[in-house]
Amino acid sequence: MSVREIKFVYSSPDRPKLRSPHLVCGFPGSGYVGKLAVDHLIQELPAKHLVDIYSSSFPPQIMIRTDGTADLMKNSIFWWQGEEGQGGTDLLLLTGDSQPSNPDSEYALAEEVLGIAAQFGTQQVFTLAAYITGVFVDKPKVFGTATDLETVKEFVAHNISTMDSGSITGMNGLIIGIAKLRDMKGICLLGETSGYVVDAKASKAVLETLLGIIDIKVDMTNLEKRAKDTEMLIHTIEQQMLASRGGGGKSLEGQQPPQKPRDTGYIS
Amino acid sequence: MSVREIKFVYSSPDRPKLRSPHLVCGFPGSGYVGKLAVDHLIQELPAKHLVDIYSSSFPPQIMIRTDGTADLMKNSIFWWQGEEGQGGTDLLLLTGDSQPSNPDSEYALAEEVLGIAAQFGTQQVFTLAAYITGVFVDKPKVFGTATDLETVKEFVAHNISTMDSGSITGMNGLIIGIAKLRDMKGICLLGETSGYVVDAKASKAVLETLLGIIDIKVDMTNLEKRAKDTEMLIHTIEQQMLASRGGGGKSLEGQQPPQKPRDTGYIS
Amino acid sequence: MSVREIKFVYSSPDRPKLRSPHLVCGFPGSGYVGKLAVDHLIQELPAKHLVDIYSSSFPPQIMIRTDGTADLMKNSIFWWQGEEGQGGTDLLLLTGDSQPSNPDSEYALAEEVLGIAAQFGTQQVFTLAAYITGVFVDKPKVFGTATDLETVKEFVAHNISTMDSGSITGMNGLIIGIAKLRDMKGICLLGETSGYVVDAKASKAVLETLLGIIDIKVDMTNLEKRAKDTEMLIHTIEQQMLASRGGGGKSLEGQQPPQKPRDTGYIS
Amino acid sequence: MSVREIKFVYSSPDRPKLRSPHLVCGFPGSGYVGKLAVDHLIQELPAKHLVDIYSSSFPPQIMIRTDGTADLMKNSIFWWQGEEGQGGTDLLLLTGDSQPSNPDSEYALAEEVLGIAAQFGTQQVFTLAAYITGVFVDKPKVFGTATDLETVKEFVAHNISTMDSGSITGMNGLIIGIAKLRDMKGICLLGETSGYVVDAKASKAVLETLLGIIDIKVDMTNLEKRAKDTEMLIHTIEQQMLASRGGGGKSLEGQQPPQKPRDTGYIS
Repeated sequence: MSVREIKFVYSSPDRPKLRSPHLVCGFPGSGYVGKLAVDHLIQELPAKHLVDIYSSSFPPQIMIRTDGTADLMKNSIFWWQGEEGQGGTDLLLLTGDSQPSNPDSEYALAEEVLGIAAQFGTQQVFTLAAYITGVFVDKPKVFGTATDLETVKEFVAHNISTMDSGSITGMNGLIIGIAKLRDMKGICLLGETSGYVVDAKASKAVLETLLGIIDIKVDMTNLEKRAKDTEMLIHTIEQQMLASRGGGGKSLEGQQPPQKPRDTGYIS
Repeated sequence: MSVREIKFVYSSPDRPKLRSPHLVCGFPGSGYVGKLAVDHLIQELPAKHLVDIYSSSFPPQIMIRTDGTADLMKNSIFWWQGEEGQGGTDLLLLTGDSQPSNPDSEYALAEEVLGIAAQFGTQQVFTLAAYITGVFVDKPKVFGTATDLETVKEFVAHNISTMDSGSITGMNGLIIGIAKLRDMKGICLLGETSGYVVDAKASKAVLETLLGIIDIKVDMTNLEKRAKDTEMLIHTIEQQMLASRGGGGKSLEGQQPPQKPRDTGYIS
Repeated sequence: MSVREIKFVYSSPDRPKLRSPHLVCGFPGSGYVGKLAVDHLIQELPAKHLVDIYSSSFPPQIMIRTDGTADLMKNSIFWWQGEEGQGGTDLLLLTGDSQPSNPDSEYALAEEVLGIAAQFGTQQVFTLAAYITGVFVDKPKVFGTATDLETVKEFVAHNISTMDSGSITGMNGLIIGIAKLRDMKGICLLGETSGYVVDAKASKAVLETLLGIIDIKVDMTNLEKRAKDTEMLIHTIEQQMLASRGGGGKSLEGQQPPQKPRDTGYIS
Repeated sequence: MSVREIKFVYSSPDRPKLRSPHLVCGFPGSGYVGKLAVDHLIQELPAKHLVDIYSSSFPPQIMIRTDGTADLMKNSIFWWQGEEGQGGTDLLLLTGDSQPSNPDSEYALAEEVLGIAAQFGTQQVFTLAAYITGVFVDKPKVFGTATDLETVKEFVAHNISTMDSGSITGMNGLIIGIAKLRDMKGICLLGETSGYVVDAKASKAVLETLLGIIDIKVDMTNLEKRAKDTEMLIHTIEQQMLASRGGGGKSLEGQQPPQKPRDTGYIS
């Protein structure tokens, strides 16, 4: 891997035959909203491994697994062939340990990932991200933006709140921005999250919205379990916050979250 | 778009026939002095779109528009063919969302922009910038520097204050510095501004000076409206500043700006 | 040496004949644990100089020697041919003044070093590093991770504590991570150290563990002397720490180190 | 000038015939010790302009001259042919507005400069630098290091204090370090300076030492005038320092500098 190079390690010399698969990206980011959703998809479909992507722009380190072995940071793409009953939809699914550590390499990785997708005829690209509000909510909303107006107009039918200002930084933004330059449609779906915890609840909301759009059904049990864990974690944090404010012995049932979500938030 | 690459997306395969057009650059910067001026020119002439310029050195993000769609950061060049009555002057007009985020890429973008201009035979390059003083003034002055002494000598006739020290950083400086290496004339015009607000008043001053030099007439109504807004904004800020100093119930009419402009200032 | 280039200066046009030598890397890092160990090996075997490696990513400076002469920062590889009685093991030994100053160049240098080793048929790569705990210990443990599970399973036989989480940053991690991509085995051995001092005691522990694995015997006298110095230095620091806590006139004999080592530590 | 490129603008298509000229570099740095010395040499010999060197690693800005014109940052090399009576010594003299702004580019510029010198057969390279002590001295010493031991041994004959530890950062170090890799001799001479002022006195000391080594005579009047200015400036600063310590009305004649120079200092 020479300087600023990106290296692909395919798990097989053969490529699957896919019909213009949607590319769905779950980069690690705030609350792991996107990554949890895509990892769940990969596990439940289940999807098959296509390629590992190594980059000299990933943090220069190895991560140690629980079995004592260690590996470089990487991104990976999996693939899934939908049955006809599933609307004939095929998928490419990207998950990763890291985003590139500098802007130039973010652009470069986005190009490379889209280059792989283009070989399979991908015409639509989704990135799943976090919409950070700094407050806890019971039912996270899903926000969205797209690179074309037609797609934006369909948001309301899928109960997606259309964003009308701000920016989306990092791979979640770049991938769909560059997709547009390649004549692909790009959609970013963002799950409302506090930004304070790994938020499987926000993941679940985003994933359900995505599955509604692409008309695929997936067993949500495992993600729902994790979402319950998130709920309990948030509940505990809220109790501690109230306690530290001298909340006395009152019941917390039906309490509002400490702050109302703001209209605009930090996105990543 | 590979690492540190710059990508051009032309709106047409045909190129306009232009007669050694002046290149006028309005990069985003302090007070948006240059960008407001060039955006006004593009709108009022009106100028036609030539090319979008994407760079992996622009901030890695997409910006969301009010209609819900999103786009990569970019710079754009427009063109305009003057009628004979307008002195036969043609123009290339650069406006953008961002300047490159690192020095190497600033040099690279400056080269690329001048390369495009060179294809049309450009011999004179203007950058419009801000001369930051930290104070509010009623009538912003226009400062200038150029890459050749003949042009500097003509400044006085256009009521431009010649700078005699300091430096101009970023694209506004580099574009004209590199223009000189390519045997083009480079001129930087800087509008006096506080640096605290988006300053359409300074923009108007710079644009009028430019139009005087290149002998082109443009309807200034829209920019004048924005300049009035700037004036009112400054007035409000000044009132607040005086009020917070315990100014009592005195009239603010005819008050001086809180500080006299210094002789030298920060330029960007 | 052009931008981001790596330059090799071999001490001879001929290459030694080596039988799949193990590569052992002692980069400068916390406590100089790895570098001291490899420098000792080079001196005692003794190993012969193969190549100096210069890189534009090393700090841009020259280091002045005690004789008044100055040199660029560099890494160097030495080689050693084991006798048959030594199990036929050959070695490549890397020591250096510096690690690269940016991530991209760390990846690049790791690739280049492994490229050299590959020419000799290297199949196993060791990096010697520091396991930082922030506390002083009498008998430093040796921790380890590897890129394959078989090697990890052998750790217990060599009294190596297997790591099961965390990451190893910098060259010590990258070299073995990239080795795996090249179908070499990678092992990182880390000596427990406070991180506060140049720690020859930790070096000795790591080196003895390595020599046990690769079945090579080396005179340890010089390193043991340095380890004694480390012990005295630590003893002095501990006394000062106790004194500054108002420890009165009590004896320090048999005292515990001020803190117990934590289970997990910072690794570098 | 593309990304990270270095651009040469020669003042003539013809190259002077030079006999293995010494390269003497005066990069801008602490106290402008080196740059003042080389600029004086260029003016007094006088030397002729060979080439301007532009680099995308120089700060992205133009500098405005007193006549109102502006220029990119650059380095320049001048040449001088010694008469036979001058020992037949020829010179290449480098002066500049800036050092590169990142390490990779410092290595690259050093290579390029030495590449130009190599075309003329240069075998010996001098960099003139500052030895910063943080204190004012009446008679600045000259320190030195070299890439070969023979040269170091000659230092004492030229009243140069041989450095025996530490490092020299930036172009002053890299140029001679890389010169060694190209089989040229490299010598760095450092003038003792406080680091607080532009120090023509230190420049004069360094230049006199250099001229002694290369056996060239130059009118020092102008530099001596500037050195007098430095002396007066330092005197003024010292008076202010004493005054601010409540020194009363005592005479300052014959006073010691406020601190003794330390043995080792910061070098740049």
